[in-house]
Amino acid sequence: MSRSLPHVHLQSQRRRYVSELREFVRIPSVSSQPRHAADVSRCAEWLANHLRRIGLEHARVIRTPRHPIVYADWLHAPGSPTILVYGHYDVQPVEPLDEWRTPPFEPVVRGRNLYGRGACDDKGQLFAHVKALESCLSTERRLPVNVKCVFEGEEEIGSPNLKPFVTRNARALAADAVVVSDTRMLGPDRPAITYGLRGSLSLELEVKGAPGDLHSGNFGGAIHNPLQALAEIICKLHDGEGRILIPGFYDRVRRWGRSERDYMARAGPTAAEILRNARVLRGWGERGFSMYERTTVRPSLGVTGMGGGHQGAGGKSIVPARAFAKIDIRLVPDQEPAEIERLFRERVCELTPPTVKTEVRTFFRTRPALVDRTHPAMRAAVAAYRHGFGVPPVFVRSGGSIPVVNEFQEALGAPVVLMGFALPDDRIHAPNEKFHLPNFFKGIKTCIAFLREAARRLPQN
Amino acid sequence: MSRSLPHVHLQSQRRRYVSELREFVRIPSVSSQPRHAADVSRCAEWLANHLRRIGLEHARVIRTPRHPIVYADWLHAPGSPTILVYGHYDVQPVEPLDEWRTPPFEPVVRGRNLYGRGACDDKGQLFAHVKALESCLSTERRLPVNVKCVFEGEEEIGSPNLKPFVTRNARALAADAVVVSDTRMLGPDRPAITYGLRGSLSLELEVKGAPGDLHSGNFGGAIHNPLQALAEIICKLHDGEGRILIPGFYDRVRRWGRSERDYMARAGPTAAEILRNARVLRGWGERGFSMYERTTVRPSLGVTGMGGGHQGAGGKSIVPARAFAKIDIRLVPDQEPAEIERLFRERVCELTPPTVKTEVRTFFRTRPALVDRTHPAMRAAVAAYRHGFGVPPVFVRSGGSIPVVNEFQEALGAPVVLMGFALPDDRIHAPNEKFHLPNFFKGIKTCIAFLREAARRLPQN
Repeated sequence: MSRSLPHVHLQSQRRRYVSELREFVRIPSVSSQPRHAADVSRCAEWLANHLRRIGLEHARVIRTPRHPIVYADWLHAPGSPTILVYGHYDVQPVEPLDEWRTPPFEPVVRGRNLYGRGACDDKGQLFAHVKALESCLSTERRLPVNVKCVFEGEEEIGSPNLKPFVTRNARALAADAVVVSDTRMLGPDRPAITYGLRGSLSLELEVKGAPGDLHSGNFGGAIHNPLQALAEIICKLHDGEGRILIPGFYDRVRRWGRSERDYMARAGPTAAEILRNARVLRGWGERGFSMYERTTVRPSLGVTGMGGGHQGAGGKSIVPARAFAKIDIRLVPDQEPAEIERLFRERVCELTPPTVKTEVRTFFRTRPALVDRTHPAMRAAVAAYRHGFGVPPVFVRSGGSIPVVNEFQEALGAPVVLMGFALPDDRIHAPNEKFHLPNFFKGIKTCIAFLREAARRLPQN
Repeated sequence: MSRSLPHVHLQSQRRRYVSELREFVRIPSVSSQPRHAADVSRCAEWLANHLRRIGLEHARVIRTPRHPIVYADWLHAPGSPTILVYGHYDVQPVEPLDEWRTPPFEPVVRGRNLYGRGACDDKGQLFAHVKALESCLSTERRLPVNVKCVFEGEEEIGSPNLKPFVTRNARALAADAVVVSDTRMLGPDRPAITYGLRGSLSLELEVKGAPGDLHSGNFGGAIHNPLQALAEIICKLHDGEGRILIPGFYDRVRRWGRSERDYMARAGPTAAEILRNARVLRGWGERGFSMYERTTVRPSLGVTGMGGGHQGAGGKSIVPARAFAKIDIRLVPDQEPAEIERLFRERVCELTPPTVKTEVRTFFRTRPALVDRTHPAMRAAVAAYRHGFGVPPVFVRSGGSIPVVNEFQEALGAPVVLMGFALPDDRIHAPNEKFHLPNFFKGIKTCIAFLREAARRLPQN
């Protein structure tokens, strides 16, 4: 046979793959910012066209009330299992813009990394699957399994439209396993399969004082300053030992036994690694738990943004009219986002002094997720990583959230294999996000291997 | 004599005066924002030209390391007292811009008010003096006293260059009284002379965590969030009863006896009035003091701006790298700004947990001021208000600060007469700042009368 094998094809195509990924990253598909709505749509079109070009079928852009879903499939392996490949083509906001070494939507290769917003989260990782499918289709004209691709544009805003889409189209999306590359490895040569994700609750708390800003000389000391009132409320959401002070908050938090905690201590990152990845010297958080546990099996409540009053240079003599804090609560099994939201709202009411008014707005809610480490699809992923990276992966939990994982598991009854290629220092969600290109190439190899291993290990239809 | 009297001249000129004031307000002379530096200079030139045109002499723009001082005089009343007229032509920032009904630097008359940034603070009030001088000079070709005008462009940033200028030029600026219109009356028919001003200390507190933003899923719960650390520090600067928790902070605060407190209770605004002016329903602050006392004879510490992390629409999953709070401390006799700054810095050090770093920056420091209510210049002002407004003024304290008042009193040995024309609802420092035009006209009449009364009551040179 003179037809080249997929991985040989891969070698010769690297330059083109990176240039296509740069094209993909160049589209500023920031889902949370209304001014980028057209860019998100354009990105969906670009991706659907690309899937069509590499030989997938039924490639289309499915409109939703906000940002579209991109679907494509290849279903010519009767009797073989079906893999649903999920990813997201939307990205986080880029602010603060002045901290980027190069503009976030002008992706550039420096050293062995591609820099740009979304380079890693999740365009680069999603694209590893796309290029894996292309490699197989172009060299062997077929895939080892049936494949359905579902790529969404709302992951960073909680997948509000994909969740009901999955539930409504459970039959059409039926699969034996879902594979997602949107998580981290422990280091360049330390692949990891994520088996636990935290849920999340994204909220905004606003404190309102006078109807307009007041002169701080004339009124300072006699009127409750909304920024101070906000600081007081924020403070009272934690005790001095890092525990969240919301009555009932911990009631449903699952307690893990010695064996799971020991496993985590062995397999997960050490405190020193977590600190090094964060580039800070000291940890913080709930007493009695390791840093890895605090970010995975324990819930957290953080302020992702706060503002109010004068933001510019120098001073301004005002008592501001209002203040806001954006709150990110991370949830663990078996916390229910809707219940925690209710408890948070009750706590804010209780903490609101009579001198100001407060309002809580909810952006989105995501349930935590757990995947069975013993499922054959997980074993297929282990074998695939061995092939792609030359070493076996470890099983880790992640503190992050992928909103739709729970829905996939419940609606399709299929495990979600979280097979990520991000590195701890890829600065996802932050300025100078990057994707380690060797991981892109090894990722493609791993994705190809996963399809083969899935064909071998998953029950036939 | 066919020459018209100053107040008749005034009647016929109102329309022109307002149109000139609009020209003055149109120049965006925001002193704290570097991008407006050229506008501040342009405003100084405009004002110096205007003073020259109305017949003042030696009108000139005096450069300083930042924003210029405008000087002019008229010294042809030998044997008569000398009055130094002080005002400031710089203005506060205009943000939040979207809360202005009409653009801040496109002044418009709606009803009996002129709307625009600086319309009241202090361009409009400064201009009342300018038009009073013009009225006298154009109708009588002379002034009843010698006059020196000193108008600065740095009042809103703490007068860093005017203070040394006054000290250095004490002889050239020698005067029997200084008159300033940059304070409030109690209502449209309730003129007030301010005899006490608070000092101020304008600071910025920055909290720094990791060198860059982090993903809040991956790190939330294990790293001290700088916004939360900032909220914790802010909280610990007050106790639960509105007292400032900085060791030594109250040590030099002067205690006032029964008679002064009774006088204040009689002459000053009631709690109901202060609440109505602030458009809030409930007060806040230090227990044991009236709202008027809290804003005048008691110090305060407020947050004028806070920020960090995600500011845009929706959520963003980060642990921000840093957070800032702008702090405005108002001081009372006999607190020393430099000492309070030191105490604040020490307190912040003490409150900074080992998990973050903090930095304090000082924008400016202003000492509190007191004026002797029995000085003949104050009696001249009482008589002038009677003439201009038809009713006698009351003596009140203001919670605001005018940085240079202390320097004038000390360097020139002259009382500073704070004869303001602002109304409590003029929204100075806030969106939709306005100047009540009847106060502009009555103010001009009052300023003319002040010059005459000063000629009569102040000791002759």
